Amino acid sequence: MQIWRVNVRNQTLTREPVPAGWEKLGGRGLLARIMLDEVPPTCEPLGPLNKLIFAPGLLVGHMLSSTDRISIGGKSPLTGGIKEANAGGRTGLHMATMGIKALILEGLPADPGLWVLHLSLEGGRWEKAEGLAGLGVYEASKRLVERYGEKTAIALIGPGGEAKLASAGIQNLDKDKVPSRIAARGGLGAVMASKGLKAIVFDNAGGQKPPIHNPEAFKKAQKEFTAALMNHPQTALYRDYGTQAMPQMTQGFGALPTRNFSAGTFEQVESISGEFMRDLLLARGGESETSHACMAGCTIRCSNVFGGEDGKTIVSPLEYETVGLMGSNLGIGDLDTIGRMNWQVNDLGLDSIEIGAALGVAAEAGLMDFGDGARALELLDEIRQNTPLGRILGMGATTVGKVYAIERVPAVKGQAMSAYEPRAIKGTGVTYATTPQGADHTCGLTIRAKVNHLDPQGQAAISLTAQLNMAGYDTLGACIFAGFGYATAPAAIPELLAARYGWEDVPADMLQVLGRETIKMEREWNKQAGFTKAHDRLPEYMTREALPPNNAVFDVDEEQLDTIYDNL
Amino acid sequence: MQIWRVNVRNQTLTREPVPAGWEKLGGRGLLARIMLDEVPPTCEPLGPLNKLIFAPGLLVGHMLSSTDRISIGGKSPLTGGIKEANAGGRTGLHMATMGIKALILEGLPADPGLWVLHLSLEGGRWEKAEGLAGLGVYEASKRLVERYGEKTAIALIGPGGEAKLASAGIQNLDKDKVPSRIAARGGLGAVMASKGLKAIVFDNAGGQKPPIHNPEAFKKAQKEFTAALMNHPQTALYRDYGTQAMPQMTQGFGALPTRNFSAGTFEQVESISGEFMRDLLLARGGESETSHACMAGCTIRCSNVFGGEDGKTIVSPLEYETVGLMGSNLGIGDLDTIGRMNWQVNDLGLDSIEIGAALGVAAEAGLMDFGDGARALELLDEIRQNTPLGRILGMGATTVGKVYAIERVPAVKGQAMSAYEPRAIKGTGVTYATTPQGADHTCGLTIRAKVNHLDPQGQAAISLTAQLNMAGYDTLGACIFAGFGYATAPAAIPELLAARYGWEDVPADMLQVLGRETIKMEREWNKQAGFTKAHDRLPEYMTREALPPNNAVFDVDEEQLDTIYDNL
Repeated sequence: MQIWRVNVRNQTLTREPVPAGWEKLGGRGLLARIMLDEVPPTCEPLGPLNKLIFAPGLLVGHMLSSTDRISIGGKSPLTGGIKEANAGGRTGLHMATMGIKALILEGLPADPGLWVLHLSLEGGRWEKAEGLAGLGVYEASKRLVERYGEKTAIALIGPGGEAKLASAGIQNLDKDKVPSRIAARGGLGAVMASKGLKAIVFDNAGGQKPPIHNPEAFKKAQKEFTAALMNHPQTALYRDYGTQAMPQMTQGFGALPTRNFSAGTFEQVESISGEFMRDLLLARGGESETSHACMAGCTIRCSNVFGGEDGKTIVSPLEYETVGLMGSNLGIGDLDTIGRMNWQVNDLGLDSIEIGAALGVAAEAGLMDFGDGARALELLDEIRQNTPLGRILGMGATTVGKVYAIERVPAVKGQAMSAYEPRAIKGTGVTYATTPQGADHTCGLTIRAKVNHLDPQGQAAISLTAQLNMAGYDTLGACIFAGFGYATAPAAIPELLAARYGWEDVPADMLQVLGRETIKMEREWNKQAGFTKAHDRLPEYMTREALPPNNAVFDVDEEQLDTIYDNL
Repeated sequence: MQIWRVNVRNQTLTREPVPAGWEKLGGRGLLARIMLDEVPPTCEPLGPLNKLIFAPGLLVGHMLSSTDRISIGGKSPLTGGIKEANAGGRTGLHMATMGIKALILEGLPADPGLWVLHLSLEGGRWEKAEGLAGLGVYEASKRLVERYGEKTAIALIGPGGEAKLASAGIQNLDKDKVPSRIAARGGLGAVMASKGLKAIVFDNAGGQKPPIHNPEAFKKAQKEFTAALMNHPQTALYRDYGTQAMPQMTQGFGALPTRNFSAGTFEQVESISGEFMRDLLLARGGESETSHACMAGCTIRCSNVFGGEDGKTIVSPLEYETVGLMGSNLGIGDLDTIGRMNWQVNDLGLDSIEIGAALGVAAEAGLMDFGDGARALELLDEIRQNTPLGRILGMGATTVGKVYAIERVPAVKGQAMSAYEPRAIKGTGVTYATTPQGADHTCGLTIRAKVNHLDPQGQAAISLTAQLNMAGYDTLGACIFAGFGYATAPAAIPELLAARYGWEDVPADMLQVLGRETIKMEREWNKQAGFTKAHDRLPEYMTREALPPNNAVFDVDEEQLDTIYDNL
């Protein structure tokens, strides 16, 4: 494996051996290490000192079920802190087969203009992004696939990224060449634009699977893991409903974000639920699919293709986070409308969580009525037209709140919350408050813990467990749902790592060891960037305003928040 | 003296004795003490936990020349840190004669709507701001004077404050009942709006000058001070040119902000200079005045009334900071245009420094051409119309930079720099970087220090001296120009305080003692609010991009910035 280092000013690629301190890391953990080693924490996110880094997880490259994820990172223009966003699709797998442990993009372009960076075993090639600049992600992907071939992996940005919006992500083609896998959070699409890149093409021709030190042992561990995953009850649930199993569950907890996080239940929850959606898609047929894989080899197939009445795809996939933030959070109970909004933000290359939250704050500011899907689509068109209002919205919920002097902004460290109300799921509230990434359920969702989620006691411990696990999975390259398997067969992780790399004495709790190391590094980087415990807080109004129907406030004491990482 | 505490939710006023720890403070120092004692540093600036505080300086109430200033403070919606903004006019004098050591406004109104708070020795009276809401500051002031009488002091906000813009200040009527004295910086006008107040009327009928413990000693010290001030060469200069003596001086240092701080000299400096302006006003006559006092008893009379060709007032006064930020900084070399822009921001109740800087960043973003005064006036009209673009601009330079992804934002801690380029006057750069207030020349301008301003060595020491003096003057209630007198007759300060209050053993360096205590408290409050040394930095581009004509970068080492307050 090598480090591929790209200087966008000179348009050069250098391939370097992996430094000793980086070898035993991958994905999110490796990003944190590189950030600490190379990126000054106080730098400007869109300036010359920030870097954009791609790193597959430690176990990527072997089509282990749901374990081929790509981590993308840098300093976030949204939060001002360290950022890792990961995605499925095939970018991770291709990088691994090309022997790239990390791709580091540095500097700023000498001249304006957008480029496509083509990477292959022969090196890097820069080509003007002619006919691509300003194009939506769907059309741009199609042209890129035509130009560079069906076998490439492609990561690209949309018009929102080109406009350097802080809600812009980086899209990755899935195994069907659809740009459906977005490293969404934290504005990394804007960082990619600042580096002058519309797309990066990974052409793995001539590449091969990463070497395995002990193939027999690897196969054995893989079997254990796969069996555990296949037999886990959640796997079947996710195959039927995907993430859309959640609306009814969060509604049950009074934790479904509704009308800018002002209530925890939504009167139209039925019509946005996974059960309703599955029946709808089965009835509609055509291009609709209720169970679809984003990565080759995935046995869960949690994804879907959301087709309309005419059987044609409206959007692929439609996930719970989008339904929560663009549906109930906006008072919109119609999946077709939500699907159309989702397509728009995808095509713009934006994070649907951040934009859903931004629209919720905009509704609070009087820019739309809750429930008015047509107006919501108009507001998304403001983003596409790059109007002043569109730019405000595209900068995310915190900027909308700032510009319209709205206090009720469901965000931490400048990043919008996911579709779990922290007053009703308090452990997840602790995660939102304390994770170095800004509010994000993928950093440690606690909804499955068997506790009273309304009780403020002990939530930090529950959050910490989830945070360590998730930081570990993000370092391995494992999907959150692969965790169902790894958690049931925990020995598989050290066995897989030992077999893959020939490492000796891999500890039984390697997942947590990696998670701990990762969060420590991220915290250190953020500290140098100027973050303190004052930033590890939920918005003040959530500690004061009771959330129906449980009339819950966020009352986890600050002591828990301040000491959560004390024994890392 | 008493503390007057107003609860805006219940619309009640309580008058309390002054707590022991507050007695020996006034103005900026007292604000810092009250903030530490009563306002949680992490609170929402426009939420119920923030307070808006008015406090005259320790020596206010005796018409000591240029020593009747009012300090207004709270948590800043612009910086997120502690904020003090002070102004001349008669608010300070009236409060002192009413025996009010500090006025503390707390809570949020129970209902929407705007009110006038009338304060007199009989207590507080709330009146609906009928016919005033939405009115510009000039017309609103006129109606308030008609309604409440010519002898009152009035502090009020404009439409920008009502819109809760983070660049909104609080205007104070001067001795001629013109709302020309704005506590401009840091968005305190938005805080006042959040408290539901359009105006506060101070009716001092029945009041009297604050008691003087030893009138003879006071008179003697006053004489020393006044003589020193009158004999100081700068006093005559300021009488002739006011702050407008500066354009030629900063130009000489290569420190005149030009075209969004991209150059330090302006080719049209002649036509915006004080010399040109003075000749112009003398020739135009009519309402024009080249030397005008804002506070009763001021012997400097640094202010002006800027009249047009027809002799009618365009704006009063036109100050250097406005000329620097709205003139050279925008490439505009025409004083009439700058004067008209100044009138607009005054009428909107906004900080002309922040808005000038915001327009500079907007020009960088392509929203106007440098030099296009007509377009600049159009952009100010966007603010008046409260459009999305207007709101972006009204939130200040940092928000414009954020929304338009512009790196070149001349601001620190979210607050725009004044009209002194920190790369060319490096000590002032240290002040901008390190003062708890955010970039602000009034916290420690170093341009008069007899040093090489381009040399990075030793600038922290120069800045610190200036910062301590200024924090001391702001605690006394002394104008920056009164400092010419106090610096020449330094014994006057302890003598005046001892005579006024009967304090024993007032140290000879009382000015610095007060300054030190004030900055210590402000730093402590900001620390709890989440500020670290990472926030004590100039924008990254200023450390990298050379400023013509001196080709200077800001190269004061971070060690100086990090240790400047070590021995406070």
